[in-house]
Amino acid sequence: MNQPSDNAGAAASGLPRLVLAVAASERDAFFPPPADELGRLAQVRTVEPQDVQTLAEFSDVMGDADIVVTAWGFPRLDAERLAAAPRLRLVMHAAASVKYLVSDALWEREIVLSQAGSAMGPAVAELSLTATLSLLRRTHRMDHALRAGIDWDTAREIPRAREMSGSRIGVIGASRTGRAYITACQALGAQVTVYDPYLPADDPLHGVAQDLSTLVATSDVVAVHAPETSETHHLIGAAEISAMPDGALVVNTARSALLDMNALFEAASAGRIDVALDVFDTEPLPVDDRWRLLPNVLLTGHRGGATADSRRRAGLIVVDEIQRHLDGRPLQHAVGRNDLSTRG
Amino acid sequence: MNQPSDNAGAAASGLPRLVLAVAASERDAFFPPPADELGRLAQVRTVEPQDVQTLAEFSDVMGDADIVVTAWGFPRLDAERLAAAPRLRLVMHAAASVKYLVSDALWEREIVLSQAGSAMGPAVAELSLTATLSLLRRTHRMDHALRAGIDWDTAREIPRAREMSGSRIGVIGASRTGRAYITACQALGAQVTVYDPYLPADDPLHGVAQDLSTLVATSDVVAVHAPETSETHHLIGAAEISAMPDGALVVNTARSALLDMNALFEAASAGRIDVALDVFDTEPLPVDDRWRLLPNVLLTGHRGGATADSRRRAGLIVVDEIQRHLDGRPLQHAVGRNDLSTRG
Repeated sequence: MNQPSDNAGAAASGLPRLVLAVAASERDAFFPPPADELGRLAQVRTVEPQDVQTLAEFSDVMGDADIVVTAWGFPRLDAERLAAAPRLRLVMHAAASVKYLVSDALWEREIVLSQAGSAMGPAVAELSLTATLSLLRRTHRMDHALRAGIDWDTAREIPRAREMSGSRIGVIGASRTGRAYITACQALGAQVTVYDPYLPADDPLHGVAQDLSTLVATSDVVAVHAPETSETHHLIGAAEISAMPDGALVVNTARSALLDMNALFEAASAGRIDVALDVFDTEPLPVDDRWRLLPNVLLTGHRGGATADSRRRAGLIVVDEIQRHLDGRPLQHAVGRNDLSTRG
Repeated sequence: MNQPSDNAGAAASGLPRLVLAVAASERDAFFPPPADELGRLAQVRTVEPQDVQTLAEFSDVMGDADIVVTAWGFPRLDAERLAAAPRLRLVMHAAASVKYLVSDALWEREIVLSQAGSAMGPAVAELSLTATLSLLRRTHRMDHALRAGIDWDTAREIPRAREMSGSRIGVIGASRTGRAYITACQALGAQVTVYDPYLPADDPLHGVAQDLSTLVATSDVVAVHAPETSETHHLIGAAEISAMPDGALVVNTARSALLDMNALFEAASAGRIDVALDVFDTEPLPVDDRWRLLPNVLLTGHRGGATADSRRRAGLIVVDEIQRHLDGRPLQHAVGRNDLSTRG
C-alpha cells in the first residue's frame, strides 16, 4: 500500500476524513497502487481492523471520521461505538455480509450503509461452476485416490461421470450469484431448474422454476445460492437430502446454515452423495473436522469471493459509492434496515 | 448386455457377421440395452478383447467376420492376423486412437477404417475446462491442504486466485477438442490465443493465432489439445516451460508426449507452476509415481473421454458408420493412411 496513512495535504484542503479499516493483506487487491483513488476523495487513515477492537482504540481512530471503509474483522457499530464516532455518515463495506456490523443505533443515526457484495457474485458463481464440473466428472475422487496411493484401475472407477451438457442442475436461490451460475451452466448446455419463492412476477426464470421437493428429487446437481435468513435455515434438511437420488451431487458456496450439515454428512459418508463445500458450520474449520476425511468431498476454505478480479471490482464500487455520497447523488448499493431479513 | 452373443435369426437372414470386441464394462455405455442397434444391422458375436489375443483365438473369432467393432485392447491387425480374417471389410473403432490397430497390411487390403473419436471431443474439452477452472481458483491446493490437516488460514492462502473471465488462455492445437474447449472458455469470458501451424487458411481462429514462444510467455493457462505425432513430441519442452511466467498453469488432457514431463515436474515441484494432468508417460501410473505427491497438481486417470454422454455419442457414430458401410454410402469418420501422421 503506497497511500500515505495520514494525508496532510488533503486535510489542509478540507477533504472529509476516511478510515480505511481493511487488513493490509487485502488492501492492495481492492485499491492497487500506485493509483491513490481514495486519497483523491478524502483524507485517508489506514488501520488494521484488529487495532480498533477496544473502545479506546476505536475512539482514537474513529473520533473524527466521516467515512469508514470496512471488509472483515471490524467491530460491531453499536450505540457505544457510534457515540465515539460522532461525525460518521457513511459505512462503506467492501465485502458482502453487513449483518455483523449493524445495530439499531446505526439505523437510528441514519448513517448510510453500502456494500460491495455484487462484486463477489461472479467469483462465487465461478467457484460453484468449478465445483459442479469437478463433481460431475468425479475429478475430486480420482485426484484423491491417486494421491492416496490407490492403484490406477481403482482410481479410474467413475462409472457415472457426466458432462455438464444435458445434466440437470437444480439451483436454490436466484440471487445475483445464482443468476451468474445459471447463465454459465446454461452456456455449457445444462438443463437448469430454480427454486426461489421470491422470483419477481415478470422474471424469465419462472420458465424454469420448480418446487423444492421436485427439484431435489430430479436434479443431478443441487447448487445453493440463497442468502442466510431465518426462512432459509436448513432449507435443505434431512428430508430433502434423503429425497435426492443416489449419485446426486451437492454444491454449497453460499452459507452452511442453508443445509442440515449432519444429514448431508451422513449421505456423503455413505458414499450416496458427493459434495463440494466452501462453507462450514464451524469456521475456521478445525484441523480434525470430519469433513476433511471423506474421499468423495471437495473442500475449499470459504474463498468463493476471494479472487483478484473480485477484490478489484469491489474496490471500484467502494470508490464510486463514496464519490456518490460526497456528491449528494443516490448510492447504488445502499443497504436499508429492511433489506437484511431477506438478503442476509 | 442383453444382445444375444450369437444371433441365429440374423445369420439365417444373411446379415453380415460383426464381432463386437468391446469389454463388457464399457459395452452398455456405447449401446444401451434394450435397443439392439447392432443386432438389426448384423449377426453380432460379442467377445472380450483379452480373449482374442493369441492367433488361434483370433482366428476362431474373426475367421468369418465382415466387420469388427473395437475400442481398447484389441490386437494389432498385422499381416498374420489379417490373413486369419479373410472376410474383414470394416474396422469400426469406437474410441479415438487407431494407431495401435493399424498396419501396412491393413491399408494394402483396403479395409475400411473408421473411428468415433469425435464423440470424445466434448468430454475431453470439458475435463480440460474443469481442470482450468480448478487451477485458476486453486481449489486443488485448498482441497489438498484441508484434507492433509493443514490449518484453515494456511489452506486459504491463495493470493493469485483468478477468474476465467479475463484470464489469458493459450491453447496448443485447434483440434476438435481444442475448439470445443476454446468455445467454452470464450463463453466464460476468457481471452483465448491459439498455436496451431495447421490452421486452414480461412479459419476464424487466425484472429487469435499466436506463435508458440509468445503464447507460453504470456498465458495464465496453457492447455494442450494437439495430437501425438513425431512433430508434436515435446512440443512444450524445457525452454517453453521455463519461459512460462511464475504462477502459470498447465493443463494436459491430450497426450503426455506433447510435454517434457521431467521439465514440467521440476517447475511444478518448485511450486512455480500448477499442473493438471489426465495423461502420463507411464500408464497405468505406478502407485509410487512422483506426480502423486505434489500439493499443487491435480490428477485424473486418463478419463478425459470417459463420460456416459461420450460413450453414447460414440455408440451412435458406430451404428451410423456401419449402416453407411452396408448401404455403400460414404463414411463420415473414415481414417486413411495419410491421416495418421498429422492427427494421431
